[in-house]
Amino acid sequence: MATDFFNKHRDTLDQAVTAIGTREFWTPHPEMPSPRVYGDNAAAEGEAAFEAYKNSDFPLDQPGAQGTTGAELSPFGGSLGVRYPRVPVQTLVEQSGKALETWRKGGPQQWVGVCMEILQRLNQRSFEMAHAVQHTTGQGFMMAFQAGGPHAQDRGMEAVAYAWQDMSRIPGLVTWEKPQGKHDPIRMDKRFTVVPRGIGLIIGCTTFPTWNSYPGLFADLATGNTVIVKPHPGAILPLAITVAIARDVLAEAGFDPNVVQLAAHEAQDDTAQELALNPAVRLIDFTGSSANGNWIEQHARQALVYTEKAGVNQIIIDSADDIKAVARNLAFSFALYSGQMCTAPQNVYVPRDGIRTADGTLGFDEVAKALGDAVAKLVSDPARAVQITGAVQNEATAARIDQARDLGMTILHDSQPLPHPDFPDARTLSPLVMATTADHADIYQEWFGPIVFVVATDSTEHSIQLARDTVIKHGALTLSAYSTDNQVTEQIQDAAEQAGVSLSLNLTGAVFINQTAAFSDFHGTGANPAANAALSDTAYVSNRYRVVQTRWHV
Amino acid sequence: MATDFFNKHRDTLDQAVTAIGTREFWTPHPEMPSPRVYGDNAAAEGEAAFEAYKNSDFPLDQPGAQGTTGAELSPFGGSLGVRYPRVPVQTLVEQSGKALETWRKGGPQQWVGVCMEILQRLNQRSFEMAHAVQHTTGQGFMMAFQAGGPHAQDRGMEAVAYAWQDMSRIPGLVTWEKPQGKHDPIRMDKRFTVVPRGIGLIIGCTTFPTWNSYPGLFADLATGNTVIVKPHPGAILPLAITVAIARDVLAEAGFDPNVVQLAAHEAQDDTAQELALNPAVRLIDFTGSSANGNWIEQHARQALVYTEKAGVNQIIIDSADDIKAVARNLAFSFALYSGQMCTAPQNVYVPRDGIRTADGTLGFDEVAKALGDAVAKLVSDPARAVQITGAVQNEATAARIDQARDLGMTILHDSQPLPHPDFPDARTLSPLVMATTADHADIYQEWFGPIVFVVATDSTEHSIQLARDTVIKHGALTLSAYSTDNQVTEQIQDAAEQAGVSLSLNLTGAVFINQTAAFSDFHGTGANPAANAALSDTAYVSNRYRVVQTRWHV
Repeated sequence: MATDFFNKHRDTLDQAVTAIGTREFWTPHPEMPSPRVYGDNAAAEGEAAFEAYKNSDFPLDQPGAQGTTGAELSPFGGSLGVRYPRVPVQTLVEQSGKALETWRKGGPQQWVGVCMEILQRLNQRSFEMAHAVQHTTGQGFMMAFQAGGPHAQDRGMEAVAYAWQDMSRIPGLVTWEKPQGKHDPIRMDKRFTVVPRGIGLIIGCTTFPTWNSYPGLFADLATGNTVIVKPHPGAILPLAITVAIARDVLAEAGFDPNVVQLAAHEAQDDTAQELALNPAVRLIDFTGSSANGNWIEQHARQALVYTEKAGVNQIIIDSADDIKAVARNLAFSFALYSGQMCTAPQNVYVPRDGIRTADGTLGFDEVAKALGDAVAKLVSDPARAVQITGAVQNEATAARIDQARDLGMTILHDSQPLPHPDFPDARTLSPLVMATTADHADIYQEWFGPIVFVVATDSTEHSIQLARDTVIKHGALTLSAYSTDNQVTEQIQDAAEQAGVSLSLNLTGAVFINQTAAFSDFHGTGANPAANAALSDTAYVSNRYRVVQTRWHV
Repeated sequence: MATDFFNKHRDTLDQAVTAIGTREFWTPHPEMPSPRVYGDNAAAEGEAAFEAYKNSDFPLDQPGAQGTTGAELSPFGGSLGVRYPRVPVQTLVEQSGKALETWRKGGPQQWVGVCMEILQRLNQRSFEMAHAVQHTTGQGFMMAFQAGGPHAQDRGMEAVAYAWQDMSRIPGLVTWEKPQGKHDPIRMDKRFTVVPRGIGLIIGCTTFPTWNSYPGLFADLATGNTVIVKPHPGAILPLAITVAIARDVLAEAGFDPNVVQLAAHEAQDDTAQELALNPAVRLIDFTGSSANGNWIEQHARQALVYTEKAGVNQIIIDSADDIKAVARNLAFSFALYSGQMCTAPQNVYVPRDGIRTADGTLGFDEVAKALGDAVAKLVSDPARAVQITGAVQNEATAARIDQARDLGMTILHDSQPLPHPDFPDARTLSPLVMATTADHADIYQEWFGPIVFVVATDSTEHSIQLARDTVIKHGALTLSAYSTDNQVTEQIQDAAEQAGVSLSLNLTGAVFINQTAAFSDFHGTGANPAANAALSDTAYVSNRYRVVQTRWHV
């Protein structure tokens, strides 16, 4: 049964393994919410499914529940009212440990087959997921569809492909024959069995509940571990749908559905800590704040811990043919999902003496103004702008904008509410863009949200030094640079390699620094404080399983 | 120049990569100290080279030294009198960081080429190394040659093969082309650069200074990291020779020799701790006691830490056709290098009601007696026995035998000095074998050295439960079992997979539980407290480097 899933998806799996090797463009999950791809009724059915969840008990048949929990609020207004089963930590762990016993024996093909089937069903329900993601994260619908659906599925499958590639290199049964000169050789048979680490814990975030959780979830599952998925209390629904689908597939494959469980809990309780410190939890994937991520790294010593935390993403502007093209691209990056992305740029370094362009030297103030103007233009039609900005997920981010405004810098574009045509109560805000100098210490920390500092530096060399040192000290997921000078871009590339941060050069078109493509771009490097792993590579999967061998004479 | 090393060794490297996949027998390093393989003069030259080190300054051109250190004593008698440069920790780290800058840019082919050349030169000097290993560890000459030379080189090359296999899957330059329906596709070029973590620290042990250090040393080097090799003060010479060879090759390849440095230091000083906690040290490979290994895991939070610590290795005897064949094999395992192996068996579980054999049931006492008798027979010719036992490396191990004798158990074979024909002052001892019961709590801790407990259990089921629980709680590198019943061996295999320990079944011939073959057997699993990694697999190398990408529009 489960082996059927493996063979059913074998072609796609093989293509995925090829893709992670070539790193050329590939995806089995179309990113356009088109009826031609997803079916004529997919959009309507997805919306209906989402609406049916509201003010109801979420249909999750998970044993051991003691009452329900759930108090999600849509950043576009209103309460979702979905109630999720609340299962005590000890029950979750016991059920997971019990499920592990049979799941462990399934072996790589069954683990991977189940993963591939879950991903396919998730893909089919991308519209439903889009609504769930939109109304928990505040993402605009198109972004919620893409990042919450196909792009998240891509990242999940990428982890499965790495896991399969690595595990399939372990032979099953081998005959080992050691020559003994004139005597008969020594002959032994050896069996190599892939075994899981144990129970995996996935700690989700509010902004990308699926995209950031799927790599760890599928890396754990594909290597035979059981999984407890702990969503952020502010964004439970997307992961509840995911867990429900996973449990269906597991049951059909003849496994205990408790291989995947949901740990919905109340805001501010200690479920995360309790789970993270449980001795049976051997793997933890965390996305969230540096404070919480560092706490887990420090205290959950019984587990392998993979964290994506905060960083200060930076842009170096050295020179450019067309500053307007640069500013257009950056304005979109500043506005996209209101900067609530771990990849969103924050500090833009520009030499105080200005930059070279095709039209001659442009002063710092002119560059800064061009950036402010590009943002103003982008948000000039609020009905269009809110499709890009979406809504601010929580009050803390809105408050952070006010706090940034109080830093007393020169405001290039002030943040303002953007009336939403469909959701009058949506918490929508345009980016705050301000000019400052490199000696302003406050800019070398993360200001999560649509907050941008255009920073006057002594020179491009100074910009590079600031960028490198900030990555090393505070971490970053992205570095972007603009230069028409090959020597400068080489210097910047060297700094990026030293600091361990991925670099984008001269983005002026339809690719934005915030975005990475699974199967081609690594997300994060694991080489600076922003994240201790990359999504995804061999290192992300290869330690989640172990090999136990048995040998005997033939 | 360095690329020449890569191409020079390309064929061997390709064979090594094939070998880690098939896990069939393969080695490029012949284990027999034969003149036909190593040359007619190799033995004499090796001995002469070793003798020349004695009572001299070791020829290591390493900058920053402040005086010398070195007080090695041969377990076969006498002081070596070799003096090594003593370089302060801060100087070592600064020199390593500086060397990293150019080494980092060498890239995978140069890193791997340099590693392969070092390994070849180490192989050529296997006789010299054998003497150095013998007179620091106490191993007999043959074992010192094999484990200190070819087998250690195998383990080093195995790590290089895994590193190369993994790194070579990262493409250099890729064109990514994303279709845009009727519009032109988006085209980007992406460059993926393998970058090292930084400085690696290798902490060696007294018993297998090369075998246990080479995996980490070569895994670090092959992935572009620089390395500081910190030998145990009791076994510096083998690693000093290694470092000297590495520095020669690095210089010839045009790199800073400080890519590999020796951190010789005084016994009982805090060099290990100081190095382990240095913020620039990003990788640590440790072999030694659980106390020290756990300390490093707990405190060296800036580094990735790979540890091999202590465990309780166990044997389950359920049934056997020929108890004498079992006892012969085990007696050799007990005596080999006086049990000073992390793989040496300690607890032998036998049902108190006896076992089935081809000649009928054999009582517990008879099985226990067979084991004691086999040891007695093995050591009855001391001149031959000392070639197997070698000498006890340090007084603490000798004292531990006395301590074990005081436990008051039934002595099956008492430990006694074995006169050595060549070295009258050698610290040679035969194994102590005692009978006890499963409720004796002292047996569930490691008794490092030639100390064996034959343990009466309720039944084979009880034996399996004891073995599994002891692995999970205290760790183990090996589990061995004897049974003629397939159902029992399946139960034991399941227990081994649950506990995460490698299993050998019915060893009665020329393979011993203490021994593993690189390229085929994994050493350790990384799945129980004895070690947090296996030698070697993908997980052992894949996180030692990271990938930094740069992308731009074509």
